[in-house]
Amino acid sequence: MDDAAHMTPDEFRRCGYALVDRIARYMEEIERYPVLSQVRPGSVRERLPRAAPEHGEPFADVLRDVDEIIVPGLTHWQSPSFFAYFPANASGPAILGDLLSSGLGVQGMLWATSPACTELETHVLDWLVDLLGLPGRFLSTAAGGGVIQDSASSSTLTALIAARERATAGAVNERGVVYGAAPRLIAYTSRHAHSSVEKAMKIAGMGSGNLRLVDADAGYAMRADALESAIAADRAAGATPVMVSATLGTTSSGAVDPLRAIGELCRREGVWLHVDAAHAGSATICPEHRALIDGVEHADSYTFNPHKWLLTNFDCNCFWVADRAALIDALSVLPEFLRNRATESGEVIDYRDWHVPLGRRFRALKLWFVIRHYGAEGLRAHVRRSVELAGWFASRVEESGEFELAAPVSVGLVCFRHRAGDALNQTLMDRLNASGALYLTHTRLDDRLVLRLAVGAPATRREHVEAAWTRIVETARGLTGGTPAPA
Amino acid sequence: MDDAAHMTPDEFRRCGYALVDRIARYMEEIERYPVLSQVRPGSVRERLPRAAPEHGEPFADVLRDVDEIIVPGLTHWQSPSFFAYFPANASGPAILGDLLSSGLGVQGMLWATSPACTELETHVLDWLVDLLGLPGRFLSTAAGGGVIQDSASSSTLTALIAARERATAGAVNERGVVYGAAPRLIAYTSRHAHSSVEKAMKIAGMGSGNLRLVDADAGYAMRADALESAIAADRAAGATPVMVSATLGTTSSGAVDPLRAIGELCRREGVWLHVDAAHAGSATICPEHRALIDGVEHADSYTFNPHKWLLTNFDCNCFWVADRAALIDALSVLPEFLRNRATESGEVIDYRDWHVPLGRRFRALKLWFVIRHYGAEGLRAHVRRSVELAGWFASRVEESGEFELAAPVSVGLVCFRHRAGDALNQTLMDRLNASGALYLTHTRLDDRLVLRLAVGAPATRREHVEAAWTRIVETARGLTGGTPAPA
Repeated sequence: MDDAAHMTPDEFRRCGYALVDRIARYMEEIERYPVLSQVRPGSVRERLPRAAPEHGEPFADVLRDVDEIIVPGLTHWQSPSFFAYFPANASGPAILGDLLSSGLGVQGMLWATSPACTELETHVLDWLVDLLGLPGRFLSTAAGGGVIQDSASSSTLTALIAARERATAGAVNERGVVYGAAPRLIAYTSRHAHSSVEKAMKIAGMGSGNLRLVDADAGYAMRADALESAIAADRAAGATPVMVSATLGTTSSGAVDPLRAIGELCRREGVWLHVDAAHAGSATICPEHRALIDGVEHADSYTFNPHKWLLTNFDCNCFWVADRAALIDALSVLPEFLRNRATESGEVIDYRDWHVPLGRRFRALKLWFVIRHYGAEGLRAHVRRSVELAGWFASRVEESGEFELAAPVSVGLVCFRHRAGDALNQTLMDRLNASGALYLTHTRLDDRLVLRLAVGAPATRREHVEAAWTRIVETARGLTGGTPAPA
Repeated sequence: MDDAAHMTPDEFRRCGYALVDRIARYMEEIERYPVLSQVRPGSVRERLPRAAPEHGEPFADVLRDVDEIIVPGLTHWQSPSFFAYFPANASGPAILGDLLSSGLGVQGMLWATSPACTELETHVLDWLVDLLGLPGRFLSTAAGGGVIQDSASSSTLTALIAARERATAGAVNERGVVYGAAPRLIAYTSRHAHSSVEKAMKIAGMGSGNLRLVDADAGYAMRADALESAIAADRAAGATPVMVSATLGTTSSGAVDPLRAIGELCRREGVWLHVDAAHAGSATICPEHRALIDGVEHADSYTFNPHKWLLTNFDCNCFWVADRAALIDALSVLPEFLRNRATESGEVIDYRDWHVPLGRRFRALKLWFVIRHYGAEGLRAHVRRSVELAGWFASRVEESGEFELAAPVSVGLVCFRHRAGDALNQTLMDRLNASGALYLTHTRLDDRLVLRLAVGAPATRREHVEAAWTRIVETARGLTGGTPAPA
């Protein structure tokens, strides 16, 4: 092949500068775009050629199509008026850390395949144990350790596999779960927990029917007494409780399960405790939010997503275990082509045994870049601003008469609704999102439609939350004929 | 928080240019580095501060530490003298496509969360069906469709879950696999297949003991007659055959399982056929390598890694299914917060149901950038050069007298050994890798140590393969006292 087909280092400089400029311009202009993409299904595809090009094309043509075809088809997660789902933080240092990862192009499946890739990841995840106030048993210098995965869904699956094997002394891994005499394997989570737990139960062959959705209290947090009863009932029926997944900040309403009571119960019962703090976990970098993790010293595994609210681009999920041997025993497979002396001596970590995939990119770079750029104080300031703005919005809701809070305000998340009922709230949300001025999503609580406003995009400032509130109120008044609904 | 803590667009431009320059310089200087990192365990960590910084640091300080701490701890997968494992291709357009993905920071879990992210992915994977000569049943415009995952390990797990549910009519997903009367669920793969199949069996709760490692022929390819016997024996014992994973290009030796015979058998038996073409799959972009996939029209799922040999940075695994409904049925979980009208009408794809994680980044951009930059002819030229260079090396081995081929030469991969036996080969490999001049890895075939030379890094030219051969011969002669070993 003619080497000319590869992009030379000089061409890479030129095209790289152009793309850096394009991204900087996207940052500058992001408020001009409708937050929720307004395109109809198929409209992006119909502008793309039916067949791949036979001959290479200039980079400028690709960038033109990015502007004309791709950008109009985006929903702008980095918009300061993106309040849907949870935030998916990007930041300059994270983008650049990821760029360096791509540029170096190394693989971190084994320590030996790029020692810095493994060691920086282990080190930065140890840093985070301290920054977040997590227990020392999660440190790599103790018996634990942390790893970066793509998502909390994958981490929860990983935890479930490790828990399943601990509960069955490795029998499922070896023989599968069909052998007749085996007891049923049960997991527990809140009725309001994320669907990832049900998905993990299916993938792990344990069955969604063996997931107990434990009743919640009035604030949508799991009831520890209901969990205790469920475990007792299962044991009485001859089943084996395997894992409890406690949620700190549910996706639906931000509810925080009572970790200490759940943790003490799990410890007594010998059940693996997994803690899913995907969104709210970022908050514990602030001492004033450490109450969230009271009792976490009883957890066997813990996960949160810097790619949600800690300024580090997706994918960057952090997952810790207290006993790394349990994890590695459950997931290790060692074929000849992966054997090497450093591994067999046990003196290094090979992250391939810590998750589903074998290959892995150098994701620790972006987390390291972020922590160094912002410093702990900068990360705390970002969390605090989001919490403050969400609190401001919640106060407006409470004062309004027309609207009400639908759940206790959680860190950065406000669940609210118009008092006029589901139909009005649905229409209100659809109008707001169609306006392009902001984007928010919904959930159902107590069988009523609830609107969610999640604050946390790095670009979001006071003016954006104020503008959102004004538009929400005015749109609702337009729908109700200008009259505030009865309180 | 003071907005000054965020990197402004102007700072992003400045730091972005500096990093683009740094990466370009890495490309220019990569031959100066020892290919296999020479550091000892712990040496990277001991240069990092024990605690995270409290205050933010200048970007220049971070880049300095990249040079001084990180780069010396890398194994250089992009080196032209990297011949270990399989290649992990990076390229200018792929790096920039990934940079744009980071810069846009959108999430593609649902069509609605960024329509372009879903539609470009579907479209480019349809392009690849044509480019690679795959059957039309994998097209999204038929009943199939493709998706980007992180690795072939994850795709194989995904296929196994879909196959498991098809074989049990969804029963395992609902009830788990413990219910007493259920038959054992069996999967089959070659004795020489990748460990990802065993790992998937464990994760899926099916048990590594229910994976049949089918005997291979003299060229290390699965024997279709042995597979047929194994399936018959399991059926006779009351077990349920669930999936066959056929390998096109094993990791160990590049062996190609006889796909047509296996496919016809799977079709007759009603067993899901998954095809793992992780490395060799890139070759079928060249018509002269289409014999590799003869019979692929019988496959239920197919996977290959552009991040290995098709110039697209990790992570970029492509996975297709012939019947997307089977996949979605197996993996779909639909909580309230993810419901939306476009999904429920069935007119769009929501990729969250196609794999383990929920969140997903815009990975199609890099694949699109690569296909447009190189064009089909550029991609074919890259594959052809690797195959030609591997063929040249194999010819030297055959002519040498001291060395011999240890397996049929596969696309881009040569398995060889010195005739003087395992101890010499082990020492030879260790010396070569410690020299820093090149990096190759080993496997075992017929219980003998075998060296693997995998050609495929974008920077590798004839001179690098020639230099590798010269060094291999000279190092071996140094070890054997200068005398060629007896033929």
